[in-house]
Amino acid sequence: MGDFSVNLENLISDLRRIVGDKWVVTQREFMEGYLRDETPDPVRPRAAEGLILVKPSSAEDVAGILKLANANKVPVFPVGGRTGLVGGSVPIKPGIILSLERMNKIEVDRENIMAVAEAGATLGDLIKAADEAGLFFPPHPGDEGAQIGGLIATNAGGSRAVKYGVMRNYIRGLEIVLPTGEILSLGGKLLKNNTGYDLMQLAIGCEGTLCVITKAVIRLFPKSKVMVTLVVPFNTRSDALKTVPEILRSGVMPLAIEYVQIREIEEAAKHLNERWPVQRGFAQLIMILDGASQEEMLLRCEEISEICESNSAMDIMLAETAEEQSRILRIRSNIYTALKPHMIDILDVTVPPSNLEKLMNEVDVIAAKYDVYLPAYGHAGDGNLHVHIMKEGVTDMRMADRIKSEIYKAAVALGGVITGEHGVGSLRIKDLGLVLSEKHIEIMESIKRIFDPNNILNPNKVLP
Amino acid sequence: MGDFSVNLENLISDLRRIVGDKWVVTQREFMEGYLRDETPDPVRPRAAEGLILVKPSSAEDVAGILKLANANKVPVFPVGGRTGLVGGSVPIKPGIILSLERMNKIEVDRENIMAVAEAGATLGDLIKAADEAGLFFPPHPGDEGAQIGGLIATNAGGSRAVKYGVMRNYIRGLEIVLPTGEILSLGGKLLKNNTGYDLMQLAIGCEGTLCVITKAVIRLFPKSKVMVTLVVPFNTRSDALKTVPEILRSGVMPLAIEYVQIREIEEAAKHLNERWPVQRGFAQLIMILDGASQEEMLLRCEEISEICESNSAMDIMLAETAEEQSRILRIRSNIYTALKPHMIDILDVTVPPSNLEKLMNEVDVIAAKYDVYLPAYGHAGDGNLHVHIMKEGVTDMRMADRIKSEIYKAAVALGGVITGEHGVGSLRIKDLGLVLSEKHIEIMESIKRIFDPNNILNPNKVLP
Repeated sequence: MGDFSVNLENLISDLRRIVGDKWVVTQREFMEGYLRDETPDPVRPRAAEGLILVKPSSAEDVAGILKLANANKVPVFPVGGRTGLVGGSVPIKPGIILSLERMNKIEVDRENIMAVAEAGATLGDLIKAADEAGLFFPPHPGDEGAQIGGLIATNAGGSRAVKYGVMRNYIRGLEIVLPTGEILSLGGKLLKNNTGYDLMQLAIGCEGTLCVITKAVIRLFPKSKVMVTLVVPFNTRSDALKTVPEILRSGVMPLAIEYVQIREIEEAAKHLNERWPVQRGFAQLIMILDGASQEEMLLRCEEISEICESNSAMDIMLAETAEEQSRILRIRSNIYTALKPHMIDILDVTVPPSNLEKLMNEVDVIAAKYDVYLPAYGHAGDGNLHVHIMKEGVTDMRMADRIKSEIYKAAVALGGVITGEHGVGSLRIKDLGLVLSEKHIEIMESIKRIFDPNNILNPNKVLP
Repeated sequence: MGDFSVNLENLISDLRRIVGDKWVVTQREFMEGYLRDETPDPVRPRAAEGLILVKPSSAEDVAGILKLANANKVPVFPVGGRTGLVGGSVPIKPGIILSLERMNKIEVDRENIMAVAEAGATLGDLIKAADEAGLFFPPHPGDEGAQIGGLIATNAGGSRAVKYGVMRNYIRGLEIVLPTGEILSLGGKLLKNNTGYDLMQLAIGCEGTLCVITKAVIRLFPKSKVMVTLVVPFNTRSDALKTVPEILRSGVMPLAIEYVQIREIEEAAKHLNERWPVQRGFAQLIMILDGASQEEMLLRCEEISEICESNSAMDIMLAETAEEQSRILRIRSNIYTALKPHMIDILDVTVPPSNLEKLMNEVDVIAAKYDVYLPAYGHAGDGNLHVHIMKEGVTDMRMADRIKSEIYKAAVALGGVITGEHGVGSLRIKDLGLVLSEKHIEIMESIKRIFDPNNILNPNKVLP
């Protein structure tokens, strides 16, 4: 075991004392699923040897584990559902893997229209709990196996962020445990709170480097009475993308506006043994609309149709049944899975929405220059583009790196950033300087030292 | 002049060199308006002697001033529109008053549905600029003379925060100047950004203690095609307040849900020489609704009426003309002004919305115990209550302090905080410990030292 000084047997027995024998796993074969996330294989960092998997049942357990680790300078890797795409939760040093999967209770408070969820509950659990209480969790920030703690630690986004925003907008309170073992309660069932610096906002998006999130108060919304999904085909990318701000300015605010191109969406359908329902148009917009009544929805769909048609849209497909809508979204969500076997990396560069078309054109220029296939699609309402670096035509990892670097630079030159959703993780540390000034990074490092003086929490992640 | 070591004449001439002679004011009679904010007189701190008022024209000017101040350990008090209520911008030590009023440009970007506003532009300027571009800035976080920099530094809230939230939710990018003189650009015209720790979130709500905000990218929304204001009278507080979550769960999401009691709203009307249009009902809800069409609005009003009537509401007043609506809001906004001459302090305690009735009842108990008048009203949709400590029956400031303390404790016992809107400023520092743990305050202090190693920026504010 690793380079930390503590006696391994003592550490294990101390951990067993805290969480119980059963919840400390030391045999490699029983922790395989915890050694990787969903990052594509060619760029995913490899897990270290000398790992111990620990499963606490409470914030107090977590505090005990962190105190012990901190005293002995043992690295701790908090993991959620391991659905990340930037190697953020891969344990790359000998140490402790901390899985909060046993802490998975959710209580819905109908009076305050909020949920209190433990960090190990999954996105699927939250969606279900909200639904059973007659309420709704609007965003869909990733795989439903993602856990609440991870969704918050990465400030996850996803497609349904146009109307109400990303995870940060839903979080009203957090319970966190500091690497030094203190349990802090931040915010609460509160819609307004200006009591001192908002440390909760630092915890959101810290990717498990500042604290371990153990519980969250999450804002819910009323269930939409009606939801419809539209698929709108266009001949050109330009027609499709120039439609987006017109829709947003019209007063109709869709939950999601997704941009896809026919080749990839058909590939995703084939991958699922399905048929994509709209066979026409090189470029397509998929929109999800919610409303309080059938009448309201009808008015909105008419308004959107008019805008789309004035931008040369072809026949619009309107999916009204829940089944049809979920089929469309399932296919859309599977582009990543369909492409994954042939993929080196997936990017999530984000630019001002009005520059999305320019960014896509730049990506085409880069693809032509290197003679490679760089399929791109994304959250058009948010200016958030998923560009895939595929194996096709890429001769080695240095070439992949050059391509990635050119895409990053194109995004930054257009007023954008290198990551809008997936975060920094292990993969993007070396490119942070493209977006953040030296002083910015210096402040981040100083903040890290305040929270984690011994650098035990997710070391070698996020920070250079 | 003050206790800092620099030669005063040298400091003044250096400041003149940076911003020009005309923009450095040293005569007390020309800075009177900068020595106070809207905090009620009995609790407002007094401005120090030995102040210099400086009006920069650019972020570079601000950087020059801060470098100079930092090198000489001269306190700097950034001020906005001085509409705060907790003594946050009163210059309480000899030093520099930094007013960004000359930096007041606003550009609206219709393609990205955002505004780029300099810190010295006012809320009124922003509302107007958005309107002229055919767009809308939904919240109304205070007096229209408030400046953008101050609204962000205090994370202002206000009444129209139910649907889209407080200032934080609208801010997509910031330009800030650190006390050590570096200019940082954070975020941008971006709806998603997960590139490193989100320092922008720390700047929002820092009350001018970590940095000076010089520019902001602010999200706008489409203009609502239709807006209506409802005034709904109830016989009892309980009937009015139990209606609120029912409305919020119905799927109708008002921009604002305000709770008032007849005595104070009539007093505000009288103060303006107006007549409050709804004379019945001890307790009233004022709701602002927006919608995309007349038909949509009609459906929503019907739904709300049904819910209100099922909770024993009396005749509902529906204001449709812009004039009538703005009259209602003007009267509502003037409760504070009407009460101010007789007021010692205004609180903005905030609890989980479902506990608002309990909190109001506790306030009544405290009023009865001390035999004083504690008028309360507030943002019912947000659980944010404005309790006024009036002079009536209060014999001295220690009694006022005991009353305040009991109200704070009642709010905290109900899962709330001592400030949801106004912030900590000078007035609430000593009560921070009621809400924040020692460790929380220790982390705040460490963060302050990272940003402001010489403690020059708004010293003796926010932090104990």
